[in-house]
Amino acid sequence: MKGLLLKATWDPRPDYKVTDWEKRTGKAISGNRVWRRPQLEVGDWPDPQPGPKDVVLAVQACGVCGSDMHFYETDTDGYILYPGLTRFPTILGHEFSGKVVEVGGEVETLQIGDMVTAEEMIWCGRCIPCRNGYPNHCTNLEEIGFTIPGAFANYIAVDEKFCWKIDAVAERLGDEERAYELGALTEPTCVAYNGIFERGGGFRPGHYVAVYGAGPIGLASIGLARASGAGLVAAFEVSSQRRELARQIGADVVHDPREVTPSNVLMELSKGEGFNLHIEAAGAPRSTIPEMERALAINGKIVQIGRAAERVPMYLEAFQVRRSQVFGAQGHSGHETFPNVIRMVASGRLDLSPIITARYTLPETVNAIARSTERKDGKIIVRPN
Amino acid sequence: MKGLLLKATWDPRPDYKVTDWEKRTGKAISGNRVWRRPQLEVGDWPDPQPGPKDVVLAVQACGVCGSDMHFYETDTDGYILYPGLTRFPTILGHEFSGKVVEVGGEVETLQIGDMVTAEEMIWCGRCIPCRNGYPNHCTNLEEIGFTIPGAFANYIAVDEKFCWKIDAVAERLGDEERAYELGALTEPTCVAYNGIFERGGGFRPGHYVAVYGAGPIGLASIGLARASGAGLVAAFEVSSQRRELARQIGADVVHDPREVTPSNVLMELSKGEGFNLHIEAAGAPRSTIPEMERALAINGKIVQIGRAAERVPMYLEAFQVRRSQVFGAQGHSGHETFPNVIRMVASGRLDLSPIITARYTLPETVNAIARSTERKDGKIIVRPN
Amino acid sequence: MKGLLLKATWDPRPDYKVTDWEKRTGKAISGNRVWRRPQLEVGDWPDPQPGPKDVVLAVQACGVCGSDMHFYETDTDGYILYPGLTRFPTILGHEFSGKVVEVGGEVETLQIGDMVTAEEMIWCGRCIPCRNGYPNHCTNLEEIGFTIPGAFANYIAVDEKFCWKIDAVAERLGDEERAYELGALTEPTCVAYNGIFERGGGFRPGHYVAVYGAGPIGLASIGLARASGAGLVAAFEVSSQRRELARQIGADVVHDPREVTPSNVLMELSKGEGFNLHIEAAGAPRSTIPEMERALAINGKIVQIGRAAERVPMYLEAFQVRRSQVFGAQGHSGHETFPNVIRMVASGRLDLSPIITARYTLPETVNAIARSTERKDGKIIVRPN
Amino acid sequence: MKGLLLKATWDPRPDYKVTDWEKRTGKAISGNRVWRRPQLEVGDWPDPQPGPKDVVLAVQACGVCGSDMHFYETDTDGYILYPGLTRFPTILGHEFSGKVVEVGGEVETLQIGDMVTAEEMIWCGRCIPCRNGYPNHCTNLEEIGFTIPGAFANYIAVDEKFCWKIDAVAERLGDEERAYELGALTEPTCVAYNGIFERGGGFRPGHYVAVYGAGPIGLASIGLARASGAGLVAAFEVSSQRRELARQIGADVVHDPREVTPSNVLMELSKGEGFNLHIEAAGAPRSTIPEMERALAINGKIVQIGRAAERVPMYLEAFQVRRSQVFGAQGHSGHETFPNVIRMVASGRLDLSPIITARYTLPETVNAIARSTERKDGKIIVRPN
Repeated sequence: MKGLLLKATWDPRPDYKVTDWEKRTGKAISGNRVWRRPQLEVGDWPDPQPGPKDVVLAVQACGVCGSDMHFYETDTDGYILYPGLTRFPTILGHEFSGKVVEVGGEVETLQIGDMVTAEEMIWCGRCIPCRNGYPNHCTNLEEIGFTIPGAFANYIAVDEKFCWKIDAVAERLGDEERAYELGALTEPTCVAYNGIFERGGGFRPGHYVAVYGAGPIGLASIGLARASGAGLVAAFEVSSQRRELARQIGADVVHDPREVTPSNVLMELSKGEGFNLHIEAAGAPRSTIPEMERALAINGKIVQIGRAAERVPMYLEAFQVRRSQVFGAQGHSGHETFPNVIRMVASGRLDLSPIITARYTLPETVNAIARSTERKDGKIIVRPN
Repeated sequence: MKGLLLKATWDPRPDYKVTDWEKRTGKAISGNRVWRRPQLEVGDWPDPQPGPKDVVLAVQACGVCGSDMHFYETDTDGYILYPGLTRFPTILGHEFSGKVVEVGGEVETLQIGDMVTAEEMIWCGRCIPCRNGYPNHCTNLEEIGFTIPGAFANYIAVDEKFCWKIDAVAERLGDEERAYELGALTEPTCVAYNGIFERGGGFRPGHYVAVYGAGPIGLASIGLARASGAGLVAAFEVSSQRRELARQIGADVVHDPREVTPSNVLMELSKGEGFNLHIEAAGAPRSTIPEMERALAINGKIVQIGRAAERVPMYLEAFQVRRSQVFGAQGHSGHETFPNVIRMVASGRLDLSPIITARYTLPETVNAIARSTERKDGKIIVRPN
Repeated sequence: MKGLLLKATWDPRPDYKVTDWEKRTGKAISGNRVWRRPQLEVGDWPDPQPGPKDVVLAVQACGVCGSDMHFYETDTDGYILYPGLTRFPTILGHEFSGKVVEVGGEVETLQIGDMVTAEEMIWCGRCIPCRNGYPNHCTNLEEIGFTIPGAFANYIAVDEKFCWKIDAVAERLGDEERAYELGALTEPTCVAYNGIFERGGGFRPGHYVAVYGAGPIGLASIGLARASGAGLVAAFEVSSQRRELARQIGADVVHDPREVTPSNVLMELSKGEGFNLHIEAAGAPRSTIPEMERALAINGKIVQIGRAAERVPMYLEAFQVRRSQVFGAQGHSGHETFPNVIRMVASGRLDLSPIITARYTLPETVNAIARSTERKDGKIIVRPN
Repeated sequence: MKGLLLKATWDPRPDYKVTDWEKRTGKAISGNRVWRRPQLEVGDWPDPQPGPKDVVLAVQACGVCGSDMHFYETDTDGYILYPGLTRFPTILGHEFSGKVVEVGGEVETLQIGDMVTAEEMIWCGRCIPCRNGYPNHCTNLEEIGFTIPGAFANYIAVDEKFCWKIDAVAERLGDEERAYELGALTEPTCVAYNGIFERGGGFRPGHYVAVYGAGPIGLASIGLARASGAGLVAAFEVSSQRRELARQIGADVVHDPREVTPSNVLMELSKGEGFNLHIEAAGAPRSTIPEMERALAINGKIVQIGRAAERVPMYLEAFQVRRSQVFGAQGHSGHETFPNVIRMVASGRLDLSPIITARYTLPETVNAIARSTERKDGKIIVRPN
């Protein structure tokens, strides 16, 4: 089969101390400090061989994620930008859907022909966090498209336990193609859903919600907030194209944060009461959190979903006076998140299809990733088959 | 001014033991066992005299509630049917909106001309439950239209602390008349909202919700569930007119419970997984709860909002095997409920206007109540001014 | 090795419809309707052969559970009394602790010599409830001592993922023997903990807690409530010996429910405010729930932990007026329950050792079970090695 | 009567902008920027005149709070140190208990002779936060001993709705004197309880709890955590006397944070798992929060109770990776907090009496406050009658 292979050189920076675990597993905990001179190329790759509990999917759609972009871009020393867990060479691509074309001998719940999407985080189900109910914090994590082969490829093998059927989406739409595209949006939507509803505990219908950043996670957050009864959804985003998408997806008010003071906007919209939920999806907390602090409703919440390796000067007194709280969020697995998002899409409550702004074939995947570096699109989809 | 006065005779049934508190306050705890030979008449009544913290409202809209019907209907001994707290004579009507036409000397937050709706439950703010945060369980409760003068009248005086502005609804609609009508729906909608979100803890977006009974509380529940991201809303109702309203308000699936077995319908719709939230708004738990028990999702919830003085044979083993729970709900006050509902209406997230199926003038109020006894309408509104 | 083998005849009652799943797996869903003429005997049994992820434990202590009693006792037709999932022949015993004496090739977290206790419910980690975070509702459940070999034996093999280390208990006590005994109490204590804290959401320190039934689950509930800050713990139990244990474990007030009206006792103790949490550990909800309903605090909770295949006439109006709720509980897995209970024991916060009222050797296990049918003991422990 | 009067000069700093509200009410929002040259003196003051809903208490015990110290100490310009809401002259003292010696005409729940403690925060019950259930965030707040006369006096008048009976404490102790002293500890204990259980949502029994700062709030936090089932309580405090008190109250491990790295201590104690709950009671978040961030358990919580007008550089990535959260806490009112704390004390679950390290008579109150500035004592009590 064909697949987008990423090769890179294991060349730890002089000051990076490689751990025994890294040596043993070949995985780098801080990818951007170890992997150099990445090469992305669509080429031949052996067909996946399913284990007894795996299914093989013919990939139908796979979205380009910000992290894919950070494998393509390098710093001045030639290191990749992506800071997280990685093992190369591997095939990239982790936001995907596909049709089951082969099933392992012990597979019980899926059949050839089933339409599915899949989790990206391969939690072990055995470590202490997994046993305790925290699969997003598995200590034995593998990640599809980061440490094991991903879905910018014709085929991928996945344990059935990470697969979720999306047939109901196709039934409602009467359109398999579109169902697969929406299916490929499930993973990033689940990252937003996990942040808002599992980690942040959600909001009361009627509450005011502000979303900072309208990349794919921010757009999914806007769509989810609107579909779940937010009384007002305000969004802040620097890209004009993404601001337009934010409006289409359901934001009532959208601003360029360089042109307004977000906290002033929010306090005015709420007649001085503040916003109940603030979602950080910009990955720029040094800029966004101080604005949130000035626009907290009493009992307000902040959920940090964007990632940023930076310290944020926070004024905890504001959280005391406003009875407020901050939640850190990561991941998308567990907690009924995948099935709930799929139900919302299948019933038409949530339609994020407008955020898909470009489509590519598998041989064009490097171009797709290159385009994503312009940071103007909603979601770019690759259609491998 | 004019108002719908209810007079009745204090004539406790022979087996009813009048308490000292009832003697002292003139309030009957079990109205249907004390008040006989009710007479409803629209007549003259002194204009309300506001206390220093009160506002006087010119009532613009007041809904007919099931309880009003139970003051009109009597049993074979001539006792009213309403079983709750009552003190007569008084003016009926407790689901209302109006314009502020007079303000007491110490009023701080409202001005003449403001558009408001009001809570019906006059919680004291001083008893132990009130101090602890449970105003719906105030031990010194007075109730507008039950123990103190209500809003089937030209004017009513209300402490400002029970009033909530609805100007934002009018601004959005550009229509004061319609805003007042929607304002009068706030109280019953808050009963549903309190049951679902405060008492039941809400549901995850995507969850499946079943509503039993599509009178005003059930219809509000349907509208709220749909607006708040329920993946599927199923409703059961015997009246065909109300079933039609249920569909208009947002139910995906509506059945006459005499023609189907609700639990079978729900298990089929959910492909055997069960429904996550079951809302009892029929006041018939002996019929509805057993169906709910057979269609509980894992971690399912039942919220009892309808009232019924009957024992229900419950199979708690079902709640153990399905990790499920039951919540009893009453009231509408506190917990941000009024402002959240008003925000949902003001932003267009929730539009219950289709459930208003008849309008009457103040002199016709007895007719309005008589019509409500047919139990076919959504909400009947009286427009006093 | 030696072990307590239970043999019984597969002889479904005439009206029992054996499902395909039961035929295929050899498991009876309703044991008491299928298994007849049980024979319990301590005899030879092959040593367990660990799989690659298993450890072999030399069992040090194993408690007699009510369910063991229900394998010993039969009805007039000779069927066992235990109504749940079962596959025979197998070795009984599921509340145990032991020393690791062998480790499979892929075991990562345990070593020979480790002291552990283990879960009894062998959840698959793959079915939808497991993925969603509900291991106690696994659809592929196996149960140690019910469907697979248990711990009234010299040795048992268990997947390491179900094992939890208790070395810290031994360190604190300076006594391995006692640590193993306390370790064997972990499973029933976790059933109580899961009911109170995971399912019921716990209680605020200072709240009043009533426990109905002081068998092992009720006694553990009493101990947990006392250790966790309950303002008052009241217990009701018919056995005088168990009432004495209830007092030793921490109940402030203990009554024989045949001699008092529990609701009156509770209302008097609480000066009319009611009890905040009611724990059903008697398995007699038809008797206990009505008492609870009459003694509900505002925002009161009922947790049903005891099992009973009976309908309970419940007055839901009481739950509405008192803002109250009912939770059904089963199981002990997941949700940090095992590690939290072990921590409480290891730090001395919870010392349930007084409830161990008898000790037997492995060859005497049938006698131990026979004694348990007197229903007077706290916990009877078998020491196999 | 006699009382400790604080006089000070209204002399706003040049850069302080006095608001209209401050002019109208005479209250300074930022006391330390307005009030200069404080004079504390025990002198004559008119007896309190109770309103119809007030009771008059003969004060039996009143604790010295850190804020009292900040009225006594001044900066180099002669301004008081206390930064919050204040109106002078007034009588100080807000942690108190007393005997009812007079009742207003409308008082319903208290009688002459009742033993009570009282809230300090005089929430209005009418503003939006109060209506929504957030009395600690009342927008019309008055504070006993800050803006209205306090309890370093023979008598004080308080609305009965802020009073909570402590007779049960005296009954259990058989000692009224000691009951009054414990009663005076209720307010600071409720500040800790509100932070841990209402704002932070509490912890699961068995969880590990770290308390930073062992002044009165930290000591109360330690006592509450221990009484509520914390598996381990670790405390950090610079004063050796307070460290000793921490041990007496129930901390398992106590360190001087200048001599250890708290995060290392906690990670070692928890064998690398981290602590579940971190309570900031030092008012030094710039020092303490970074340590907490390095010792977060998965799903860990931080509760900020101490006050500090400083920005804290926080690493939100740590909260994402560890699934953690931060809660800001203030106040002690509402949410059943006072009655729950009183129940814990009355049942002997919580005994904070060891933290009372000095007692003074009313004429010596200035000395008592002077001593508190040494920051070594637990709680200093003044006994006015």
